[in-house]
This record gives sequence, structure tokens and C-alpha cells, in this order.
Amino acid sequence: MKIPKVLQDVIDNFHKLPGIGPKTSQRLGFYLLRVPESQLEDFADSLLNLKKKTFLCSVCKNVTENEICSVCADGNRDRSVIMVVEEPLDLVAFEKTGKFSGLYHVLHGKISPLENIGPDEIFFQQLLKRLESGNVSEVIIATNPTMEGEATAMYISKEIKKRYSDKIKITRLGMGIPTGADLEYADDLTLTRALEGRKDI
Amino acid sequence: MKIPKVLQDVIDNFHKLPGIGPKTSQRLGFYLLRVPESQLEDFADSLLNLKKKTFLCSVCKNVTENEICSVCADGNRDRSVIMVVEEPLDLVAFEKTGKFSGLYHVLHGKISPLENIGPDEIFFQQLLKRLESGNVSEVIIATNPTMEGEATAMYISKEIKKRYSDKIKITRLGMGIPTGADLEYADDLTLTRALEGRKDI
Repeated sequence: MKIPKVLQDVIDNFHKLPGIGPKTSQRLGFYLLRVPESQLEDFADSLLNLKKKTFLCSVCKNVTENEICSVCADGNRDRSVIMVVEEPLDLVAFEKTGKFSGLYHVLHGKISPLENIGPDEIFFQQLLKRLESGNVSEVIIATNPTMEGEATAMYISKEIKKRYSDKIKITRLGMGIPTGADLEYADDLTLTRALEGRKDI
Repeated sequence: MKIPKVLQDVIDNFHKLPGIGPKTSQRLGFYLLRVPESQLEDFADSLLNLKKKTFLCSVCKNVTENEICSVCADGNRDRSVIMVVEEPLDLVAFEKTGKFSGLYHVLHGKISPLENIGPDEIFFQQLLKRLESGNVSEVIIATNPTMEGEATAMYISKEIKKRYSDKIKITRLGMGIPTGADLEYADDLTLTRALEGRKDI
């Protein structure tokens, strides 16, 4: 039996998404057959509007509906600290903690020689440009603790130090055991970093 | 920081789908920001076409683009056997095995007193109607082995027997250990059914 083409189209579109396998795609496709027409229309509209009505903030490259994102536009934020993240979702994660009051800079990627992504393929020059104002005293590099993320952190750190040696403090997120984790299952590197980063109590 | 409304709309629409949690919805929303506009348009189109271009087969209630589905329209199928399933996806699963050559009947639900779903809320009368032709010699009841599925199977079986006593054979799918499963983790009922259904080798 062939699945009707229009249904198969929906299934295929779900299957293109990361982390959505063939079984889940099929389940979602058949599920949508039973929802009200209006829900399908809302879903379709949201997809059509997505790229048309979102932009990258002209300051930090965060996703925004205006020229400047809500973080950069907020007068209460500390403009002397910039946290550098790989993706907008990383920014969202930090904003959820409510513990960071500085600004961000979203690279939209990481340096990855294997994928031919160098410093010019991410928003790195735009970061350097922001530092020229002279108002920034600290850059927190919050790229992921992966090989590419570490390499990106090292590169950015080196380039900023080259230009602003002691004028701008460069920090990296603390590494160690995540809350709720089981020591028994932590990998060697995590344990080593946790040991190095130990604190007096 | 507020996520832009158009992006939040996409995230909310994913979140309405079964099995897609808040984190996955967010990840998918941000992912779609980076895909080509054409992929978003294709996705939206497929959703808009979904209900407009699919129907339920007038014979078996399977999902189809025509009046009669491809299974019912296939002249090579054995019209004397009808397998009764709850949902179109169950039909798809059996068609994948390639081991069933009869026809189907899709109930689109199961009898569930708790949710106020009785025999008239599923396509049960339509099944009885099909049996009136007198050409059907076996009905295989392939509802799920859940409480509602079993109750549905019992009800259907009773109603058919009432009308066609020995003229139509009624069978239920074999129950037992699924392939690849670990006996150690099988529940009591599955083991009991497997024991009852044991075969000579």
C-alpha cells in the first residue's frame, strides 16, 4: 500500500528535521490528519512567517524582530561584559538563568577546519569591531566544550589578546561536574577539569 | 530576553505535536531559522494540502487520495479476509510485512467508555455493512493488546458472532514474546500468553 502523496510530503518534511526519525515522522504525519484544519493553517503560517519576520540583531547577531534585539536594547544591561556564544539557543539558555546581566555576541557557528568553516564564516570580525569602542572590560567565551568549541575559544582569545593585551579580561566558563550528575559516569576529562577547578568551602 | 513572536509561534506549533517536548520544539524552531526559505515553503504547503487532498476510503476507511484506497482497489487481494485495525498506521505496519493479502477495515479509534467513545464513534457499523455481502469468511481482529483494544475486540467478535455465528471465522492476532525481546524483562501477562500460545517445534 502506498501512503498518499500529500501525507508522504508531510512525513518527508518532518524527516528532514534533526533528531526526527522515520517512525516519528510517520507518527506525526498521521497525527496531523486528525487535527482541525485551522491548526494546520496556523502551523503553515508560522513557517512562512519565520524567516520573513526575523532578523539578526545588528549589534550582537541574536535573532530578533527588530533591528536591535531586546537584550541589546535593554538599558539596564552591563555593557562592559560580552558573552560569546555559538548559537542563539545558547543565549536563550543563559537568559533563563537570569544570572547574567551583560550583553552577548552570537557567532552563529564555530571554527571547524573539517567543514571548511574559518573565522570569517562566523560573526567574529563583528565581535572585534564591537571591542573597538573601548567600553568592554571582559569577554566571557562560552563556546561549547567540544573540540571545535575549544578551538574557537582559543582562536578568539588569542586574537583579542593580540589587540588589547591587558585592557580586556578574557574568561572561559567554569568546567566541572554538572549538577545532578553521577561521578561514577563522568568521563576522565570532566573529572580532571573538576579537580583542577576545585574550590575552598 | 523574549524569543521573537514568529519564532515562538513555530516553537508552539511543534510543541502541540505528541511526543515533542519544549526543548525539542525550541531546537526545531531555531533550526528552521537556518534552512532555505524554499524548505519552509515546501513544509507549509504540505501542511496546507494535507487535509484538503486526503480522504477516507469509502470501503475500508483507510487514508487515500482517491475514493477507494490502493489496497481495496487492488484486484489481487483476497476479498474473503478482513483485518480490523484501530488506526491507518497499523495498516501501514502490516503492509510493510508483505505477508497479508486480504483487505482491511480501519476503525479510527477503539471503544473507550472513559473517553465516551462507544461503538458508534468508531467505524464499526461500516464493518457490519461490509459483512452483509456474504463474501467474507474470516475477520482478523488486530486491535492493540491494551485494555481498550481488548474490549473493542471482544465487542466486535460478539456482535459478528451474533449475526453470522459459524459463517464467519473470527480470529485474534497471536500473542507472545516479540522478536528480539529479553524474557527477563517481559511482563507477567506477556509470558502467560506466550505459554498459552506455545507451539510444537
